[in-house]
Amino acid sequence: MTLGVCYYPEHWAPEMGPEDAKRMARLGLSFARIGEFAWAPMEPEPGRYEFGWLDQAIENLHAEGLEVMLGTPTATPPKWLIDRHDDILAWDEEGRARGFGSRRHYCFSSETYREHSRRITEVMAKRYGGHPAVTMWQTDNEFGCHETVRSYSPMARDAFRGWLSAKYGDVAALNEAWGNVFWSMLYRSFDEVELPNLTATEANPSHWLDFYRFSSDQVMSFHREQVAIIRQYAPDAMITHNAMGYFTHYDHHDLGAEVDVLTWDSYPLGFLAQGPEDQSRTLRYLRQGDPDMAGFHHDLYRGCAPFAVIEQQPGPVNWAPDNPSPLPGMVRLWELECLAHGGRFSSVFRWRQAPFAQEQNHAGMLRPDSEPAAAFHETDEVAKELSLLSDDLASSKVALLFDYDSVWMSDIQPQGTGYDGLYVAKDWYAAARKLGADVDIVPQGTDLSGYAVVLVPSLLHLTAETAEALKTTEARVVIGPRCGSKDENGNIPDGLAPGPLRELIPLTVARSETVPEGAGGAVAGRGGWKAWRDECETALDPLWTDEAGRPVLYREGRTSMFAALPERELLTDYLAEVFAEAGMDAERLPAGLRLRRGCGLRFAFNYAPEAVRLPDALCSDDAFVIGGRELPPAGVSAWRET
Amino acid sequence: MTLGVCYYPEHWAPEMGPEDAKRMARLGLSFARIGEFAWAPMEPEPGRYEFGWLDQAIENLHAEGLEVMLGTPTATPPKWLIDRHDDILAWDEEGRARGFGSRRHYCFSSETYREHSRRITEVMAKRYGGHPAVTMWQTDNEFGCHETVRSYSPMARDAFRGWLSAKYGDVAALNEAWGNVFWSMLYRSFDEVELPNLTATEANPSHWLDFYRFSSDQVMSFHREQVAIIRQYAPDAMITHNAMGYFTHYDHHDLGAEVDVLTWDSYPLGFLAQGPEDQSRTLRYLRQGDPDMAGFHHDLYRGCAPFAVIEQQPGPVNWAPDNPSPLPGMVRLWELECLAHGGRFSSVFRWRQAPFAQEQNHAGMLRPDSEPAAAFHETDEVAKELSLLSDDLASSKVALLFDYDSVWMSDIQPQGTGYDGLYVAKDWYAAARKLGADVDIVPQGTDLSGYAVVLVPSLLHLTAETAEALKTTEARVVIGPRCGSKDENGNIPDGLAPGPLRELIPLTVARSETVPEGAGGAVAGRGGWKAWRDECETALDPLWTDEAGRPVLYREGRTSMFAALPERELLTDYLAEVFAEAGMDAERLPAGLRLRRGCGLRFAFNYAPEAVRLPDALCSDDAFVIGGRELPPAGVSAWRET
Amino acid sequence: MTLGVCYYPEHWAPEMGPEDAKRMARLGLSFARIGEFAWAPMEPEPGRYEFGWLDQAIENLHAEGLEVMLGTPTATPPKWLIDRHDDILAWDEEGRARGFGSRRHYCFSSETYREHSRRITEVMAKRYGGHPAVTMWQTDNEFGCHETVRSYSPMARDAFRGWLSAKYGDVAALNEAWGNVFWSMLYRSFDEVELPNLTATEANPSHWLDFYRFSSDQVMSFHREQVAIIRQYAPDAMITHNAMGYFTHYDHHDLGAEVDVLTWDSYPLGFLAQGPEDQSRTLRYLRQGDPDMAGFHHDLYRGCAPFAVIEQQPGPVNWAPDNPSPLPGMVRLWELECLAHGGRFSSVFRWRQAPFAQEQNHAGMLRPDSEPAAAFHETDEVAKELSLLSDDLASSKVALLFDYDSVWMSDIQPQGTGYDGLYVAKDWYAAARKLGADVDIVPQGTDLSGYAVVLVPSLLHLTAETAEALKTTEARVVIGPRCGSKDENGNIPDGLAPGPLRELIPLTVARSETVPEGAGGAVAGRGGWKAWRDECETALDPLWTDEAGRPVLYREGRTSMFAALPERELLTDYLAEVFAEAGMDAERLPAGLRLRRGCGLRFAFNYAPEAVRLPDALCSDDAFVIGGRELPPAGVSAWRET
Repeated sequence: MTLGVCYYPEHWAPEMGPEDAKRMARLGLSFARIGEFAWAPMEPEPGRYEFGWLDQAIENLHAEGLEVMLGTPTATPPKWLIDRHDDILAWDEEGRARGFGSRRHYCFSSETYREHSRRITEVMAKRYGGHPAVTMWQTDNEFGCHETVRSYSPMARDAFRGWLSAKYGDVAALNEAWGNVFWSMLYRSFDEVELPNLTATEANPSHWLDFYRFSSDQVMSFHREQVAIIRQYAPDAMITHNAMGYFTHYDHHDLGAEVDVLTWDSYPLGFLAQGPEDQSRTLRYLRQGDPDMAGFHHDLYRGCAPFAVIEQQPGPVNWAPDNPSPLPGMVRLWELECLAHGGRFSSVFRWRQAPFAQEQNHAGMLRPDSEPAAAFHETDEVAKELSLLSDDLASSKVALLFDYDSVWMSDIQPQGTGYDGLYVAKDWYAAARKLGADVDIVPQGTDLSGYAVVLVPSLLHLTAETAEALKTTEARVVIGPRCGSKDENGNIPDGLAPGPLRELIPLTVARSETVPEGAGGAVAGRGGWKAWRDECETALDPLWTDEAGRPVLYREGRTSMFAALPERELLTDYLAEVFAEAGMDAERLPAGLRLRRGCGLRFAFNYAPEAVRLPDALCSDDAFVIGGRELPPAGVSAWRET
Repeated sequence: MTLGVCYYPEHWAPEMGPEDAKRMARLGLSFARIGEFAWAPMEPEPGRYEFGWLDQAIENLHAEGLEVMLGTPTATPPKWLIDRHDDILAWDEEGRARGFGSRRHYCFSSETYREHSRRITEVMAKRYGGHPAVTMWQTDNEFGCHETVRSYSPMARDAFRGWLSAKYGDVAALNEAWGNVFWSMLYRSFDEVELPNLTATEANPSHWLDFYRFSSDQVMSFHREQVAIIRQYAPDAMITHNAMGYFTHYDHHDLGAEVDVLTWDSYPLGFLAQGPEDQSRTLRYLRQGDPDMAGFHHDLYRGCAPFAVIEQQPGPVNWAPDNPSPLPGMVRLWELECLAHGGRFSSVFRWRQAPFAQEQNHAGMLRPDSEPAAAFHETDEVAKELSLLSDDLASSKVALLFDYDSVWMSDIQPQGTGYDGLYVAKDWYAAARKLGADVDIVPQGTDLSGYAVVLVPSLLHLTAETAEALKTTEARVVIGPRCGSKDENGNIPDGLAPGPLRELIPLTVARSETVPEGAGGAVAGRGGWKAWRDECETALDPLWTDEAGRPVLYREGRTSMFAALPERELLTDYLAEVFAEAGMDAERLPAGLRLRRGCGLRFAFNYAPEAVRLPDALCSDDAFVIGGRELPPAGVSAWRET
Repeated sequence: MTLGVCYYPEHWAPEMGPEDAKRMARLGLSFARIGEFAWAPMEPEPGRYEFGWLDQAIENLHAEGLEVMLGTPTATPPKWLIDRHDDILAWDEEGRARGFGSRRHYCFSSETYREHSRRITEVMAKRYGGHPAVTMWQTDNEFGCHETVRSYSPMARDAFRGWLSAKYGDVAALNEAWGNVFWSMLYRSFDEVELPNLTATEANPSHWLDFYRFSSDQVMSFHREQVAIIRQYAPDAMITHNAMGYFTHYDHHDLGAEVDVLTWDSYPLGFLAQGPEDQSRTLRYLRQGDPDMAGFHHDLYRGCAPFAVIEQQPGPVNWAPDNPSPLPGMVRLWELECLAHGGRFSSVFRWRQAPFAQEQNHAGMLRPDSEPAAAFHETDEVAKELSLLSDDLASSKVALLFDYDSVWMSDIQPQGTGYDGLYVAKDWYAAARKLGADVDIVPQGTDLSGYAVVLVPSLLHLTAETAEALKTTEARVVIGPRCGSKDENGNIPDGLAPGPLRELIPLTVARSETVPEGAGGAVAGRGGWKAWRDECETALDPLWTDEAGRPVLYREGRTSMFAALPERELLTDYLAEVFAEAGMDAERLPAGLRLRRGCGLRFAFNYAPEAVRLPDALCSDDAFVIGGRELPPAGVSAWRET
């Protein structure tokens, strides 16, 4: 477990470099990430390289004992490269080339760009692959940021045709899989297939689904090309790429297989307005972030690969609609929470706030005048606390199944305003965490033996492996409505929903309805359901019904299935029952408090804007290693469990 | 009066066909509509036809005594046709060609497409025109769905120039009619006229108005070309086209003149979110639909031609923002209501839910697994009730004048956020129905003798014939504000508003104001006005004024004119007075209840989510032929009037 | 001080001209503005001019002793000109040419269009420059209306490159000024720079800032070309251009230097929905307009040049979302208010309402049938009151600094949903007016000696001259948060915010946060802050803190600086204290009442929808020259101060 920082030596006078490195080392940082937007400084003219500044920056860091994570600069192809080739720019969904002047303007399907991506990667890998300080590499930066996974360019169209041809072999198989007999959409060859944008009304959902999959695959193959080159010159280096929050445009389980560590960029305040929280929660958590956002992504990405945070929000950012200051202590809380969830390291973005360009209002560890900002002092605290933490990874009793393919299916066909596969999953995660549970978020096909409870919030499609794992686990399984409603092409399965889940619980979804906000129902004495409701044929008596008599929850043995999407309160009620059966904690935590086992301790994190007292049952007064029973706002406590 | 269903044999294994037909016949259906999206199955390669599957489908139906409505497949030109011609695709208002991959991607002004439309129509008409089962033809499908009446293509521009030249002869006449001296918009020839989209600020409203009229005319001539060919090969067939709800982009009175029956597609739940109802009514009628939506369209299209419903919503659909399940019984209610309003038939969309492609979440009479769904059972009930119904068409005492040209004028120049000519008309219709009246919705120029009350909600322009008919009828006439405010070019008439209505009521609109929601006024002890207010010069004393002393209603003899747009409650108050004068029923019905005479009976339909009791005065307890005095939610009662 | 009217003789039968002129003269008008959209009538074919109608129109006016303001018609290039040149049309931010069919479709960077602009200007100036009636000229019309200052055409791109080259000389200087090392945006030559639209995410704010400045400069040079020609042929004429409300796309201080009088177009009801007022204020002032809108713009434009209103709203307009009627008396109030603020003249738009084309629902002084409308009668009243008014310009004790460059900086980087530099300035203006003060709105670099109070609401960047003037004035200075946070390139200044203001008040802004609506704080017993908060390092004790202990206001000697954006109530509280210190009035006026010294009198204007009584302390009962102590809605009173 280490600490790091993102650093842009090219932004600053060269003579500032040695002092910067000294201060980093003194602070207790172990590494700096550099280079990932610096193509133009590295290659100011076609083929003319200038690496002196980068050599010196690496030397400065190395001299202070810092390691270096070096980024390939392919997120920002320079203007001269764009001007020499008219087939590099991505096209947006409106059918327009995306102009130069910011970043991420390239198309993953551009063969020309791939050639230059490999070239600059090889130049860098050759030069720095053997450098003792350069122990880590990052490919590109934030694949997909600014809606860039899916490009609608002619290059993308041609590559999509090739991808379809490779997948289906015969166009008749594609026509069959997509149901193209509908609306005369039958193709006679793969070369007749267009991209699904700009149609008169919505394109075939199977068409979109394959386009989403293709687009994700293009990202993977772009990444793999760089990885192969880096491995050649730096066989022992750790390779990573940095993922984002609430972002599902490519399959992160696929990426997890192609990196040594999956890093991600955690902006708890910036993401608050982008997530699903309503206005009252947004105001309550304005300067802390949603209490489950960071945890959800830590556990999600931990399910993809070893994980870490490479960009930790240090203060106000510049890109959310509003950009508040974190409460004092929140940066420390976020850093410790990352480590508690098993993060390999936590790294702040960025070292020193830039006084110019797009991100000039984005805080750093230092202010533009080099004075320390809040993140500097709070990271200093964490650095001192590192010695209290072990490398132990805790095991979880709860698994939550999550799948990008299913999210794509619900994105493409929401069918109602209130159903979002990602947010449903996060809601279920939050309910489990509200009861104090540690949660593993796992992909389809995971072996589920050893878990006490398995949650299946929003798997529209289940693979055969998943169905088998659910059948063979001893765990209690709790399933959301709409699960199993799709086959692998995004179509209705033979025998209707819930498809393979029928082997766990004997019911058939005869039809489903969606309703707007305010039109759900309530279970007497409990919370309500919203958005989605399945009408089931079954011999089972419902466990719960709403006040209009509509079944809300069925149960058969160890398997429960909601027939209507539970609001968080209702779900928490039921999980409390299931957890209690499984011998787990089943008490609701105070509002804003979250627990997590890790680093040999059990942690409590207070996201509430008020002080919170830890339940006595959790630990004895003398067990605290960090903090104590009373947590102020932004407070962290940790104790050793016996 | 018959029942039918929409059917897509091309979606299913051929061997399922005979059983499907058997089940339809057993259910009491009289016909199936088929073929209207099946161009690619009929002509999989240019010029190579495959009609075997369609021959067989027709034989299957014929064998069971079912008639066939055959649709031309021109709503879905196949990909190979698009690829061979670059002048088929429609262009959207943003100036982009609309891509292949869904439906309705063609431009009505494409001469190339018209040639292929005539070709495929002739091929089909030749083959099936003489088939004894094929008694009905539908042209294309839902002209204008997905904003496709108005195309902004070069083909449309050229055709528009020709249309203008034919209309005006001399460009000076166009300049005069449009007032092009304003802002230097004078043209020197018709070839200088562009389409009105993408201008720096709004284009001339007269320019838009003629473009709207031209676009409607293009639909008519496209339709007429197919009709002429079908008539040639099937002179005795009934020809129809299917209209939609809340849709005004082409003139349905024009279409009425070109069909034998005007069918329409009734989706009461799907249309709820698209209509003008506020959130509380939307929640109340979520699973029933707005109580006046279907009736309004039945009566509107009955004013265009003999009418029927060809697509009746059978359950949840896939295309509204949220898609709830109808209350049990609603499909039956909607079917019976169609017949009560004089519908020639009612037909469910569709036979079996497709498990693939865009509409896979759209219910059918059967589920994808061929099990009967709710619509199957409810249609079964109706089939058994058909024998109770006669073919008698009832006559109405109330006429409501409606005009597409006037709706276009208010769409083009709303002048305020709260005025929509279509919704104003529907509001007035609803007020009359709330009092139990049957209503004829009639076009301009209709002979109005014989009516007791004539409503003129939103005729911005009145033709000379309409003005004359209003003068000569004995009926009480109730007129909305803004009526008569436009001449035939959409300009202010000589002598100002209300133009020719001044001959009915002696007032002049000196100026008009529009106000946002919440800024209207109230008539003491009654409801209020909203959105639009005319300030009138007149010697008349106002009948009603608002609390600020502003005149709201004037009356001269049998003519009343609102000077401010009445909210529904206020209007209902006044109509109750007028109806009472005319010796008609003037009591408000319980909320959600609607009455209608037809089929030799008087019907009551309960759209309320609660049970409703029919007023005793309506009928005696022993008069009920269907149902009784108490109507459950979705209940229907009918009795014979003596 | 005179009255005038906007007049379009080309819209009307020639024989109506003499009577129109007679009625204008009889009404007491001194001039008519004509010609500014009449290019096509003047030059119906390329090179064929028809000036007979215009000659006659001018003669008609001249015969009645009216002067003429003649407009160049370049806002509306005719179709034949567009068709002959493909490089005239402006392009919108989406990258599309803006079509012919309305107005303002030309690009300021089109050399072709400039040539024709100069040509038509010269033709007109030659013909009418020496005419004794033509004493005033207007260039073009409403530069920038419909988002037309900023064009994204190839012509604009090329001109922008030239402008950058002229400004920076060396591309390295541009790279340095913009911070292009960020995200590899370094350019090798000016020809690599693109326009900042359509980038994948936001372009560099310095890039935008220079593009905004360039676009403003293009307007100025377009205007200057016309001015130079007019001056040549009409050396004594007054030259003007008409500005708009709430419009900041070009620098009006620059324009002020290029005109003799800066006129503007005042639409108090039309602007209500466009301004920052919330719904309850919008409803309260629906038929009067915001009480500070007109005054703010009068004083803003008076700070640019001698000012006047050339287009005064006469009744409902056609272009706002809703278009109510002004209360009776409001047109008179608006006209008198213009004169009281020092306006050289007030002129109504337009003489007679047009019955056709885009503005047919826009009221005039006459109705389309030539009957007088409300504005006719109310202007008649004002004409009779003119003799009571002197030409004296009153001096103000309060200066408010306003700067277009700073508004652009906050437009480009709002950083929060609640900060808008223009609206912040208007809010501060309103607080001072609420206390009865007259306010000068002055540009950067103004000599501030002689003022008692100087307000600096939203100067993100301060020039050296401004900083010096603030240091040397004796006035009390009240500064808003965020002031001084930018250098001249829109970057963070050395030493951080408040930059040069640190010499007035010893504090440093360590960081700033923005918060959404509802997340501000309150000062105990007073109002609150919202949107923006600076966290300061300083030895000063805060004067005010909010209930969470956060500093809200600092003061050092005569300089105060808010650390959080005060809501209007809180600001008014503090200004009352400052005004009292300065020996000025410090009482809040009744809601809706505004005062203003001018024309030798002190005026009171009642914008409230209810009657208002003037405080006794303001004047004695026998001092009234116009009105009296009690002002009805729309009432005006004026008295002589002793």
